[in-house]
Amino acid sequence: MAFPNRVLDQLTILAPGLLGGSVAQAAHARGLTRRITLWARRPEVRQQLRAMPWCNQIIDTPEEAVRTASLVVLAAPVEKIVELASQIAPALPEGAIVTDVGSVKGELCRLCSAAMPVRAVFVGSHPMAGSQKTGWENSSATLFDGRTCFVTPLVTTPASAVETVTAFWRALGLDVATLTPEQHDEIVAHISHLPQALATTLCSFLAQKNPAWRDFAGGGLRDTTRIAASDATMWIEIFKQNRNEVLHALREYQHELQGFDDALANRDWNNLRARLERGKVYRDGFKA
Amino acid sequence: MAFPNRVLDQLTILAPGLLGGSVAQAAHARGLTRRITLWARRPEVRQQLRAMPWCNQIIDTPEEAVRTASLVVLAAPVEKIVELASQIAPALPEGAIVTDVGSVKGELCRLCSAAMPVRAVFVGSHPMAGSQKTGWENSSATLFDGRTCFVTPLVTTPASAVETVTAFWRALGLDVATLTPEQHDEIVAHISHLPQALATTLCSFLAQKNPAWRDFAGGGLRDTTRIAASDATMWIEIFKQNRNEVLHALREYQHELQGFDDALANRDWNNLRARLERGKVYRDGFKA
Repeated sequence: MAFPNRVLDQLTILAPGLLGGSVAQAAHARGLTRRITLWARRPEVRQQLRAMPWCNQIIDTPEEAVRTASLVVLAAPVEKIVELASQIAPALPEGAIVTDVGSVKGELCRLCSAAMPVRAVFVGSHPMAGSQKTGWENSSATLFDGRTCFVTPLVTTPASAVETVTAFWRALGLDVATLTPEQHDEIVAHISHLPQALATTLCSFLAQKNPAWRDFAGGGLRDTTRIAASDATMWIEIFKQNRNEVLHALREYQHELQGFDDALANRDWNNLRARLERGKVYRDGFKA
Repeated sequence: MAFPNRVLDQLTILAPGLLGGSVAQAAHARGLTRRITLWARRPEVRQQLRAMPWCNQIIDTPEEAVRTASLVVLAAPVEKIVELASQIAPALPEGAIVTDVGSVKGELCRLCSAAMPVRAVFVGSHPMAGSQKTGWENSSATLFDGRTCFVTPLVTTPASAVETVTAFWRALGLDVATLTPEQHDEIVAHISHLPQALATTLCSFLAQKNPAWRDFAGGGLRDTTRIAASDATMWIEIFKQNRNEVLHALREYQHELQGFDDALANRDWNNLRARLERGKVYRDGFKA
C-alpha cells in the first residue's frame, strides 16, 4: 500500500482541527485517496464540514466513520486520542491502519497499540506543523510543506504498516523521521515544548511588569513570543503528558541561562561572546 | 524646524549601517532633505555608497561631513558613538542638532550632550527597528514603517531641539515615545535585551544537546530563535552598556521561569494554566 503507487480507498479523519483539516485538504489536493471521510464531535461542525470541497463524507459517529477505512487519522487533542482509539477499535475493518497527530508519543503509542484488534495496526505520528491559531477553519493544504513528520513505531509494530504511514506523510509533502516514542518525547521537549515554555514565561513576566511596553517592541520580541498566543488548554495537556522530559530540558536550560547571567555579572565578556557565537552558529544552521 | 513644514538643508549620517542606511533611504524617499551627506570609516564603503541614488555627497572625514549639516545622525555601533560625537564637535555649525541610533542611552546621552559645543545640541534617539542582518547593504526605505522611536532628552536639553528630532522621526514613519535615558534603558532591557538573551541561550543550549534536532523543528523554534542569528559583537556591546538593567530583568525573569518549573514539578495545573493564559492575553494584545 505504498504511495504514490497506490491510491487509498478511504481516508478517515476523526476530530479534525488545524492538523486534521490540513491532512484532509492536502490529501484532497494531492489526490491521495478516493474518499475522505470525517467525523467531528459537534453536530454544528459536521454541518459546516459538509460544505467543504475536501470532504466526501461526514459521518455522525466515529465507529461508522472507520467501518470501511483504509487509513484512519486520529486528530483529536492529545489527551483524547487513546479514548478515541479504544472507541473505534471494534469497528475497524481487516487491514486498517490507524495513526494520529499527537504531540507526545510515549504512553499514547503503547496504549493505542494495545487497544487495537488483531486485524488492525496503530502507528504513531506527529507532523511538526502548527500555528498559534487552532481549529479546522485555519487548516490549509500547504501547512505541511517542507515540515518533518515523526513516525514512532513500537518494536512490535509491523514494518509494512510503518512503511504505509511513512509513505502517506511523504506523499503529503513532509520529510519523515522514524524514532522510538521515547526518543520523540525527548526531542520535542527540547525543540517544541521548551521554546513554548520560554515564550509563555517571557510574556507572562512582561505582562506583570508593564504590558504597555509591548507597543514599543521591534520585530525581535514579536517573533520570540509568537507562540505564546497558542491555545492554553492544548498546552496544559502537552505539558501534562510530557512532564518528565520537559522538566529535564527546562532544568538543563536554566543552567545555561544562569551561565549567561554569571558571565554578565562577572563581566566575563569572552564567556558571553562564546555563548552569543555558539547561538548564532546554531541558528545560522537552520534550513532556509 | 518642524517637519513636514520645513525641508532640511543637509542631513548628515555618519557610519551608516543597517539603521543609518535606512535613515538615508527613508529620508530620500520622503523628500525630507535637500542633501544627504554620508561618511563611512572604510574607503571601500565610501566608494560603494557613491553609487547609491539616496546619497548626494560622500565625504572622507566626519568633521567635513558635518560642517554644513542641519541634522547629524550618529549611526556608528553603540560603543563608538561618544567618541564620534567628540570628534565632530569642533566642526559643528551654529544651530546643528545631533542625534544617534544607539540601543543604550543612559551614559551615552550624558557624555554626548557634554561633548557638544554651545552652538549645537545632542538629543538621543533609538529607533526600535532592526534585523538579524546588519550592514548598509541590508538597509531599506521601509525598515521603520510603523515602528517606535525612543527620543531621550536630558532635563537640560532645549525643547526646540527635542521637537525637531521628534518631527524628523515621525516624518520617517515612526511613532515617537519620549522618555528619560534611564527609563529607556529599563524598558529595552525587558523588551529587547532579555528576549535576545533568551533566544541566544536557547540556541546555545540546543547546540550542545544535539544540533541535528533543529532540522525537525516547526515554525515555533524558528521564530523563537530568529534573533539569535544577530551579530555577536553588536550584542556584546549592548550587554556591556546596559549590564545593570539587563541583570535586573534577567533575574526577575528567572524567578518567573522557576515558578513555571515549580508548577510543572508539582502538577499544579491551575497555576500552569494561569501562566499560559496570562502569556496569551499579553501576546494577543500586540498590534497586528
